[in-house]
Amino acid sequence: MIKSDIVKSIISEKIRLSSNEGKAFAPANIALCKYWGKRNAELNLPVTSSLSISLDGLGTQTVLSLNEDQDVIFLNGQKLDPDTVFYRRIKEFLEPFRPDNIYFTVKTTNNIPTAAGLASSASGFAALVSALNELFNMQLDKKELSILARLGSGSACRSLYDGFVEWHAGTRSDGMDSYAEPLSNSWPDLRIGILTVTEKQKPKSSRAAMAQTVKTSLFYRKWPERVKYDLAAIKEAIKSGDFELLGQTSESNALAMHATMIETVPAVFYWLPETIQVFHRVWELRQNRVPVYFTIDAGPNVKLLFSHDNENRLKQEFPDLQIVKPFGSEDV
Amino acid sequence: MIKSDIVKSIISEKIRLSSNEGKAFAPANIALCKYWGKRNAELNLPVTSSLSISLDGLGTQTVLSLNEDQDVIFLNGQKLDPDTVFYRRIKEFLEPFRPDNIYFTVKTTNNIPTAAGLASSASGFAALVSALNELFNMQLDKKELSILARLGSGSACRSLYDGFVEWHAGTRSDGMDSYAEPLSNSWPDLRIGILTVTEKQKPKSSRAAMAQTVKTSLFYRKWPERVKYDLAAIKEAIKSGDFELLGQTSESNALAMHATMIETVPAVFYWLPETIQVFHRVWELRQNRVPVYFTIDAGPNVKLLFSHDNENRLKQEFPDLQIVKPFGSEDV
Repeated sequence: MIKSDIVKSIISEKIRLSSNEGKAFAPANIALCKYWGKRNAELNLPVTSSLSISLDGLGTQTVLSLNEDQDVIFLNGQKLDPDTVFYRRIKEFLEPFRPDNIYFTVKTTNNIPTAAGLASSASGFAALVSALNELFNMQLDKKELSILARLGSGSACRSLYDGFVEWHAGTRSDGMDSYAEPLSNSWPDLRIGILTVTEKQKPKSSRAAMAQTVKTSLFYRKWPERVKYDLAAIKEAIKSGDFELLGQTSESNALAMHATMIETVPAVFYWLPETIQVFHRVWELRQNRVPVYFTIDAGPNVKLLFSHDNENRLKQEFPDLQIVKPFGSEDV
Repeated sequence: MIKSDIVKSIISEKIRLSSNEGKAFAPANIALCKYWGKRNAELNLPVTSSLSISLDGLGTQTVLSLNEDQDVIFLNGQKLDPDTVFYRRIKEFLEPFRPDNIYFTVKTTNNIPTAAGLASSASGFAALVSALNELFNMQLDKKELSILARLGSGSACRSLYDGFVEWHAGTRSDGMDSYAEPLSNSWPDLRIGILTVTEKQKPKSSRAAMAQTVKTSLFYRKWPERVKYDLAAIKEAIKSGDFELLGQTSESNALAMHATMIETVPAVFYWLPETIQVFHRVWELRQNRVPVYFTIDAGPNVKLLFSHDNENRLKQEFPDLQIVKPFGSEDV
């Protein structure tokens, strides 16, 4: 099963060359129960389900239009050279959507610092498929858009929604049951804090780290069992509004993901001294009865989970903290 | 099966009150394939075998004599209060060896910095049983001494020997097949570097960390399989003098042990920012073709493995490095 066939099966006969422009925004998302490991690398099919929270207004805005000459791609206002990895990745993704003799102009803008280790590819591909849907007036449903976004970047399937989002791993080999859905629960008090400990490029892509872990980590074989527990606990925490359970489980799940990398031969090690310093400061805060937890993706930067009540205390502790209200519009 | 019964079965009828003094030295040891997790906490029976290298002249000297009044214990020249943990642990250990109406004077001296995270309990109990053997002229063999030392502290059974030492996990419930034996191989060029990144007391004892890991880490269930590979690789490396294999496997084994702690709920986390800095510096040195690897026990301090040839380079890189020649007397 190849990627372009799946795209074509979803969009077949639906493309209408009616609009002049497709425009969409998609939020970045942070996994509380991590996506770590693929069962199919071509289709970005995961080994396990995962659960994230979207970052409201932080994400990617993409405007698509047609032109007759060549694909032109702008990233944050900069026209990209066709030789860049980014250009080629977008162009390749657009291929199965392309009607004959049609070229695209893509203007994509991230309002998240790329270096913060926030997956801009997640919001990027989610915004791109939504913009394509509008441009071609395809009227695809969210499930179809989620599947298409996943083909661009796994975690992009979760960026189609706001709030808490679960990506169902699915079992089919064509991935038609591997898509994300939002949870109905809202948590207006919840805050995400982004701590950029370094702006250096990370030494290994998540994609490569994931592949190496699946291939060489013995402990990874217990990861699916770990996720089963954690996913259930996080859903229970969201349902009952149990912040401690949410935080404890999210933090432990992120540490477990890193444990699989650390056990990999040779080790994949994203943590810097500054990362560890944040861990210890968070644990110290908790000992001082400040309920704050962290999560961390495949990189050195840390995200904090806390409640509205502790915003000032944390701002004091971490002056550079960038605070996000995931349920912004419903803000208390 | 309780500890004192086992001691008595080994020493029965062998005690001769002939000598005035028992005196023995035992080296500290550093595990290259770690001992992590007990199948019996009372008898210190391990889940897996392990393999260490002894630190030649770094260790514990113990002098034992008899007195008729009360147990008196000196640690590094200081007379200990009977209320200290150390005093009580030694006294309890001595109980089954005690003839009626006899008391001990124990003078024990470590020449290793206690704070360096080197297990002084390993060399301590090894020296103590050797001193008991001499004091009572019991003429126990090394296997019996190794078993007795293990009852004091698991890794002490390895400190009965110099050089490379393997502790056989054994399968018996009384532990009579769980003892250490030396490997015949020598490696005169090999150097161990001790890096004390902090002198602070560690937040959790190895014993407690081990117990928590065995109880709550899912990844720990794969640890025995990991050790099987690593033990075979390290023995092969020692046999063939393959430093890269020795270093790579030892480093990865130590990281895997920490990965089980990191995955434990809540995480047991011994690393400090300074620890991580050493990891990165070691990896950077390797990228610059300096063959150096690290190992790390349940604490924040790091031990380096390298060869005689690179001693100056490493001394330059880490001015505080304390260098040990494990095969000192055969030094090149």
